[in-house]
Amino acid sequence: MNARIETTLDAISLLMQPRSVAVIGASSDPSKTAARPVAYLRKHGFSGVIYPVNPRIQEIDGLRCYPDIGSLPEVPDVAIILLGVHRALEAVRELARKGTAVAIVLASGYREVGPEGAERQRELVEAAGNMRLLGPNTIGLVNLTDRITLSATGALEVGDLEAGSVGVISQSGGILGSLLSRASARGVGLSKLVSTSNEADLEVADLVDYLVDDPATKVIALYLETLRDPAKFRYAADRARKAGKPIVVFKVGRSDAGVQSAVSHTGALAGSDRMYDALFRQLGVIRAQTFADLLDIPAALASGRQLTGKRVAILTSTGGAGTLVADSLGMCGFETPVPDEGTAARLRELQDGDHAVLDRNPIDVTLAGLQPTLLRSALRALMESPTYDAIVVVVGSSALAMPELMSGAIVDSLPASGKPILAYVSPQAPELIALFNRQGIPAFAAPESCTVALDAMYVAATLPGDTNLLNQTLEKAQVSLEGLPTGCLDEVEAKQLFARFSITGVEEVAVTDAKTAEAAAMVMREPVVLKILSREITHKSDVGGVAINVEPEHVAARLERMREDVRRHTGREPDRYVVQRRVVRGVEVILGMHRDPLGTAILLGMGGVTAELFKDTTLRILTPGQTLTTEEAVAMVHELKTWPLLDGYRGRARCDVSALVQSVVAFSAMVSELGDALVEAEINPLFVLEEGKGVVAADGVVVLGELTADKH
Amino acid sequence: MNARIETTLDAISLLMQPRSVAVIGASSDPSKTAARPVAYLRKHGFSGVIYPVNPRIQEIDGLRCYPDIGSLPEVPDVAIILLGVHRALEAVRELARKGTAVAIVLASGYREVGPEGAERQRELVEAAGNMRLLGPNTIGLVNLTDRITLSATGALEVGDLEAGSVGVISQSGGILGSLLSRASARGVGLSKLVSTSNEADLEVADLVDYLVDDPATKVIALYLETLRDPAKFRYAADRARKAGKPIVVFKVGRSDAGVQSAVSHTGALAGSDRMYDALFRQLGVIRAQTFADLLDIPAALASGRQLTGKRVAILTSTGGAGTLVADSLGMCGFETPVPDEGTAARLRELQDGDHAVLDRNPIDVTLAGLQPTLLRSALRALMESPTYDAIVVVVGSSALAMPELMSGAIVDSLPASGKPILAYVSPQAPELIALFNRQGIPAFAAPESCTVALDAMYVAATLPGDTNLLNQTLEKAQVSLEGLPTGCLDEVEAKQLFARFSITGVEEVAVTDAKTAEAAAMVMREPVVLKILSREITHKSDVGGVAINVEPEHVAARLERMREDVRRHTGREPDRYVVQRRVVRGVEVILGMHRDPLGTAILLGMGGVTAELFKDTTLRILTPGQTLTTEEAVAMVHELKTWPLLDGYRGRARCDVSALVQSVVAFSAMVSELGDALVEAEINPLFVLEEGKGVVAADGVVVLGELTADKH
Repeated sequence: MNARIETTLDAISLLMQPRSVAVIGASSDPSKTAARPVAYLRKHGFSGVIYPVNPRIQEIDGLRCYPDIGSLPEVPDVAIILLGVHRALEAVRELARKGTAVAIVLASGYREVGPEGAERQRELVEAAGNMRLLGPNTIGLVNLTDRITLSATGALEVGDLEAGSVGVISQSGGILGSLLSRASARGVGLSKLVSTSNEADLEVADLVDYLVDDPATKVIALYLETLRDPAKFRYAADRARKAGKPIVVFKVGRSDAGVQSAVSHTGALAGSDRMYDALFRQLGVIRAQTFADLLDIPAALASGRQLTGKRVAILTSTGGAGTLVADSLGMCGFETPVPDEGTAARLRELQDGDHAVLDRNPIDVTLAGLQPTLLRSALRALMESPTYDAIVVVVGSSALAMPELMSGAIVDSLPASGKPILAYVSPQAPELIALFNRQGIPAFAAPESCTVALDAMYVAATLPGDTNLLNQTLEKAQVSLEGLPTGCLDEVEAKQLFARFSITGVEEVAVTDAKTAEAAAMVMREPVVLKILSREITHKSDVGGVAINVEPEHVAARLERMREDVRRHTGREPDRYVVQRRVVRGVEVILGMHRDPLGTAILLGMGGVTAELFKDTTLRILTPGQTLTTEEAVAMVHELKTWPLLDGYRGRARCDVSALVQSVVAFSAMVSELGDALVEAEINPLFVLEEGKGVVAADGVVVLGELTADKH
Repeated sequence: MNARIETTLDAISLLMQPRSVAVIGASSDPSKTAARPVAYLRKHGFSGVIYPVNPRIQEIDGLRCYPDIGSLPEVPDVAIILLGVHRALEAVRELARKGTAVAIVLASGYREVGPEGAERQRELVEAAGNMRLLGPNTIGLVNLTDRITLSATGALEVGDLEAGSVGVISQSGGILGSLLSRASARGVGLSKLVSTSNEADLEVADLVDYLVDDPATKVIALYLETLRDPAKFRYAADRARKAGKPIVVFKVGRSDAGVQSAVSHTGALAGSDRMYDALFRQLGVIRAQTFADLLDIPAALASGRQLTGKRVAILTSTGGAGTLVADSLGMCGFETPVPDEGTAARLRELQDGDHAVLDRNPIDVTLAGLQPTLLRSALRALMESPTYDAIVVVVGSSALAMPELMSGAIVDSLPASGKPILAYVSPQAPELIALFNRQGIPAFAAPESCTVALDAMYVAATLPGDTNLLNQTLEKAQVSLEGLPTGCLDEVEAKQLFARFSITGVEEVAVTDAKTAEAAAMVMREPVVLKILSREITHKSDVGGVAINVEPEHVAARLERMREDVRRHTGREPDRYVVQRRVVRGVEVILGMHRDPLGTAILLGMGGVTAELFKDTTLRILTPGQTLTTEEAVAMVHELKTWPLLDGYRGRARCDVSALVQSVVAFSAMVSELGDALVEAEINPLFVLEEGKGVVAADGVVVLGELTADKH
């Protein structure tokens, strides 16, 4: 094995900048895909050594071709394997034996085709031993910074590739090619592109981690189908944020049906895509909503300019198009205020004629459109105006004749401030867009893209610097977990567990007979709730097991009737009941836990059927062994669309939000404390009472496995 | 005046196909905008006569130039006026005097610049007399069907314009240019493009009406800022739907703040953009959500193929891209089912090799991608499959080398069924997109565009054929309007008005003193609601004027206290009160009317604070003199996102939806019957009781002006 390779980062560094590359199965027939890697390496200027390997060929375009891996004159740093799935296995084995550092396996027919393929992939990994693998089913990688192409993607046919500062990692080879060709045509410069595809070994998180340290990369764009190692991704994403390198991700799988959960509602409300959303938000990863956004947003972020507010000046030289941009911005919460007096005065000085209307925004400089001095001055006035945080320049067809004129004026005005300047190109003019992008001015063909780009710039600029997943380390447990029951707890047991974590339950008494029930109700001195108490029956009202608002003197009779109803529905008489004080005031919420491959989430939702119909819930993923912070719980409460209901909306009493926040944190502490032993947990409903009166857990679900010894 | 011109349609016909065109202010300097119209007319092959007019020029490119309008040898059918705002007025006057049919005024400086400009526009219209005007502030029009260009738009610099079947009308000249250049580059064929801009005379609705009868136009695309004559637009849009010509509109002004209304909530809930939404939906007009959609949707509809279901086959030759399309479709409610057994068997026959996985969708034909016979056979199998309603073909980079091969295969398979086939082009390949579009295969560079296009095709195919604005003519009034009070009615009067239209009000008695109030409550024999009755005070609870749940025996005392409270708040003692029976069951809704320049709308919304926070409301615009139909009222109820609350959600009692529907219809009849005399009207809340128990109007607002004589 190559002596320089100890860590994954070492392996990726060598993969990105190999001194020597073996191309296994290289073809000399230019019409074949297998001919591409050697051709591209040479075409794009690879300065290292290339070793084509093919027993049926002597030479490829002047390069000596070797009959087999064994006959290579040295150990190659990297090998690209162009063989089919069956012969690739043997090649991997030989390359590993020889001590090759990393092999790129292009063949398909592995995990992506089902169980048989998965078995082939397992064999491949075994054959690789210590050698690292990219793929299989990958299209390889392109290092544009150093002009090293280890790929068969047809997108490399393009002569001039645009090197720049956006790193791209894709779990699909086809998408990598698509992004490369689109970026190239748009003048968006890329640093590195890697297709990790099946990720038998190297995966997205490894590559993100590498790009964090890559000086050429300023922004990281990801095409994601799944995260194989969420913990590793969290670590890498956290490093990226600390390094000031935004990550933009386009994640498919958004239309999958929500995860179904057995007992609680939380699972269905969480859903697998919402978990990704929560994870990305917590990590400060920006989610692209359309495929085009995956290039548009990084292109804007790569400009390195900071958007610190939401007020945008639109400078236009063509009617209508400015309106398009303003309308789109307005829908996303941006403002387009009119120029302040000072700025208006500066603009007025620039042009005369009685049609000049400069107290509006979009600011129409139709007449100045082709006069560079005027354009420069107008831009400078806007750059220096205290009214604006960003500028969108609308480029009309007048710019087609003299494109450099407008881009030059913009470039010259950049030093006047750090505000973002974007361009919206109104006519069909891909060459203008490419020109602008190459000069560092993010340029777009869709008005909506300007909005998306500015929105992402705003999010990126306002990300908390060092929140590290936001969760806080659990303090030494203050809570005794002794004597906890296991299995599916009944609601009284569930609330007793919550109470250990200081979440108050409703006043209630568990009873076994009518007489005791009546006595309990008499103590409460007001109409009560009577329910069966059961570990098996979760939908108690479906079997006649719930009565609300029962006068104390009627409780005994009502219990007997309930016993009969439940027996009729279930064939069995209940043996226990619970008498509860009614909660007649307060706002209902749901507080639950959801386990998912991405992590364990805490879910907070507004209760009541209307909010339920709108799925008004929010999620946070816990770091194992940590709890939510108070700040984070506050943020969750505020994220509810129906938050005003807790905040004194329309003359209602304000609720005890601070008690709710404490409950959310306490619930997360319970989840962390119990760890894997806690299978399900949900408080539904949790009543949030008036300010100062706390919260009351009225019902709950807990499924508890055996606690490991160290929990006791 | 030209003898052939009698109607607006006559004028537009002549504008589109003039035999002679005068170009007033034509320039011989090719760098000037004023040189463009003559140059473009000749370049694109206008076969009629061109009369340049300019006193300082003898000849333009071999054409004789006339010194003034008076010296023209004949009356031109159409004149384009290239003069500035001041000289344009005189030119219009002279052209009108000469008998010109239509003048196109390019100058700006009219209504768009404020009150002074509006005055200039008024003078212009006056000067035109019987002559019709396009503009001012227009860029003119382009008739691609007949290759007649009456425009100065720089987009006409392009040599080859793509004639086709999409008609475009724009209220902005810049947008017209943008659409023309974009469509041309994309291979989307257009029929006519007109910029109506300031619409001093000819307006969008006139042009829509013309295009309905234009044989070359199959789809109509509109860029809209405002509708000046909603009734005319309704008429034209209705004709278009009956003619089977879909209208697609991109309407700006979406981010405007909602309209504020004085007394009721309805105005704020309706909002001006929501009114447009309602109008478009009622007319079957498809609303484009992004600017790109304004070309993408018409391009798809122009294929003329019918989408009758939501099941889509994705045929792909590149990994990843098929997933993009599937994911986007899934988010919009489309299904991508796996092939049925028969189809899978046909696909299996087409290729061997053990990686072929043909029981999935996207259907991956990577290996067959470049074999035309295989591609043809696969397409035919999908076209004939009972499992699919549409096909999206994903075009990978392999098609770049032989574009005709793939497009040819698709074109050949079109006759196999009427299902839509769309193409998603994964690499950067504008030339491929243009090629596909030119061959009648709608092709897109964004996966989301495929979804938007299919969604619009589905909507277009499922539009009711002849709903004519859906409202029904009001039957001869059965309701007496005699003796109605005017002004701002108090709530008892308001409910009495509703009751005339068979909307039951809550049981209540208006009283003036404590004793009568107590007597009324005693009759009700249960706790009652006590309120002040006032025409002035609309927010009664704010002044201490509302008490709910008052025991009959306490009513007298409570009334005295209320008298005191209100006096303290308002400085005046209330002189009237109302004793109401409480409504303790049922679901609250709001039913209101909203007047807007677009028309009068009926608004139905879910009541309660939670639904209010989600603005869960729906609108229908009434045709004057008509009422909503039962079907339409049913649709409104079903459109509420919280509709399940009325429908027995989670074990609740089902509500009397049929009574609600009758109330909506009755409310619309009241609105139509009272006409302009009804200034505001709202029932809030209207309680919908259990099935069979009807509805109860608990409170209401009515502002009534003087009824005209014929209403009595």
